[in-house]
Amino acid sequence: MTGRAIRLKRRPVGLPTDDDWELTTDEVGEPGDGEVLVEVQYVSLDPAMRGWISERASYRTPVEVGGVMDAIAVGRVAASADEGLSEGDHVMGMFGVREYAVVPAKGLQKIDPDLAPLPKWLGVLGMPGMTAYFGMTEIGKPEPGQTVVVSGAAGAVGALVGQIAKLQGARAVGIAGGPEKCRYITEELGFDAAIDYKHEDVASALRAACPDRIDVYFDNVGGEILDAALAQLAYRARVVICGAISQYNSTEGIRGPANYMSLLVNHASMTGFLVFQYASKYAEGARQMGEWVATGKLKAREDVESGIERFPEVFRMLFEGTNDGKLVLGLRE
Amino acid sequence: MTGRAIRLKRRPVGLPTDDDWELTTDEVGEPGDGEVLVEVQYVSLDPAMRGWISERASYRTPVEVGGVMDAIAVGRVAASADEGLSEGDHVMGMFGVREYAVVPAKGLQKIDPDLAPLPKWLGVLGMPGMTAYFGMTEIGKPEPGQTVVVSGAAGAVGALVGQIAKLQGARAVGIAGGPEKCRYITEELGFDAAIDYKHEDVASALRAACPDRIDVYFDNVGGEILDAALAQLAYRARVVICGAISQYNSTEGIRGPANYMSLLVNHASMTGFLVFQYASKYAEGARQMGEWVATGKLKAREDVESGIERFPEVFRMLFEGTNDGKLVLGLRE
Repeated sequence: MTGRAIRLKRRPVGLPTDDDWELTTDEVGEPGDGEVLVEVQYVSLDPAMRGWISERASYRTPVEVGGVMDAIAVGRVAASADEGLSEGDHVMGMFGVREYAVVPAKGLQKIDPDLAPLPKWLGVLGMPGMTAYFGMTEIGKPEPGQTVVVSGAAGAVGALVGQIAKLQGARAVGIAGGPEKCRYITEELGFDAAIDYKHEDVASALRAACPDRIDVYFDNVGGEILDAALAQLAYRARVVICGAISQYNSTEGIRGPANYMSLLVNHASMTGFLVFQYASKYAEGARQMGEWVATGKLKAREDVESGIERFPEVFRMLFEGTNDGKLVLGLRE
Repeated sequence: MTGRAIRLKRRPVGLPTDDDWELTTDEVGEPGDGEVLVEVQYVSLDPAMRGWISERASYRTPVEVGGVMDAIAVGRVAASADEGLSEGDHVMGMFGVREYAVVPAKGLQKIDPDLAPLPKWLGVLGMPGMTAYFGMTEIGKPEPGQTVVVSGAAGAVGALVGQIAKLQGARAVGIAGGPEKCRYITEELGFDAAIDYKHEDVASALRAACPDRIDVYFDNVGGEILDAALAQLAYRARVVICGAISQYNSTEGIRGPANYMSLLVNHASMTGFLVFQYASKYAEGARQMGEWVATGKLKAREDVESGIERFPEVFRMLFEGTNDGKLVLGLRE
């Protein structure tokens, strides 16, 4: 049996191009003792994956040139040599961008497709959901009536951050690109205000939308927008550093936040995190997020694209901002 | 009666020059009801004063062009129209750089010159002391055995930060300019290691001096040194933002820390503060610092320069790094 896979052909400079990837067809082996063969159904595409293919030291070993691109994914167990999993079970794991994966059963998360469609397990019930949940409950911690601003507000994490802020009793202001995304977060998700960074001056729009300044700023983008938010911090504000998508493809290195001295004047803090650092609390996060979704208090949409061969182009959508909701790639018809 | 004063002649661009200041001789009035006339004896010179004369919005109203330069100072009450203070009392307050000040008695701190010489009240027992104390006990909070790095380590605040770190049971590594300052902090103050940023590559020297990385980084300087420290953070490190002396005279704006994403990878935080934000706890800080000084556990030295007319030149010493210890200017023979 064979299966197709997306491999890293060379390290991208700047925004990855089609030529940085290669679609290969590989032999698929049998699962050995304690392993399972997974038919991969949906692959998660996340901004952090840009860091995984960069040589720069980060929190994990980079994907090797020539290696299969890593990705969190969900799929169906096609064959099992482990007593904990059976054929037909659905599982989530780091399967990579490939049609079939033979992986150790240990560490896979069993998921129930009757509770929620598979793509949601990669979004609101998966890493983006846990990221938003712990970022807000462990670091941001807004008090009722405080103002929360989030960038990348229509994205997989940002859309949840604003809604969690509302559930915490705070005001939610989102920064997103384009009128459609701004409409979506205010009219469909219940944000109190939206700022269209493509058509508005973010600094003055923040002043208008946040008359009592910003108590919690949840940053997914870095760059100029982070600086604009720093300039509007309230006393004892918390800045949550979740990502910096505006900087990931920079060929000139990361731009640091010039307005960081606002932390000093406002007795404020800036704290970073990776969702894996809360792994011991995932059960709590998943239970709460699942309950909010089930009771209609939390909405999430997925942008499901199709076809493993489209991976290079679909991955770029994240950085071009053209996806609508949590981006996943379906590998099967 | 007349007295001399230093006035801001124009807003400096970059490092203040002699021509940015003016020495004037002014009439000195009588204290009205609730006021005192103070003979100012020692004026504190601190890096933060550069911000006070800048137009850029900061935590206080800038000194006006033509106005007397603000400064924290100590002096002797020469005449009192307030029942709480008598002629001969020594007091600390925001008297400005002038030989005589008529000020409200309310809010002045009475000090005892028998407990410690007057210049120490502007250093280890004053604002620099409180800054080091609260920065380390409220934000840095090293655990025993952890590694604390401080920049500006031979300065008024930095020298105390490293010694407090040792009293907290941590390792103390100081970054300072020149072999004499490095010798001072290791041999006289008991720091475990010193890095001479003028003659060493700070990034590689930090790697060598901090094999377990940096748990607490107390930053007084900003710029490249802040970036070098960020690159070496330990898991859950705390970065204390106290100042950015390398940036205060920049004519190109503040340089932001390009390595701030290290906060994310290391689940670390960066927190700023102004000492005034701990005003309600000064009594606790002063008691503890005074006890450490009295029992010889904390050493502090002052660089006492003389002559109000030398203010422009003496103020520049802070930014040229040529002062030895807490810089004060004596106004009387």
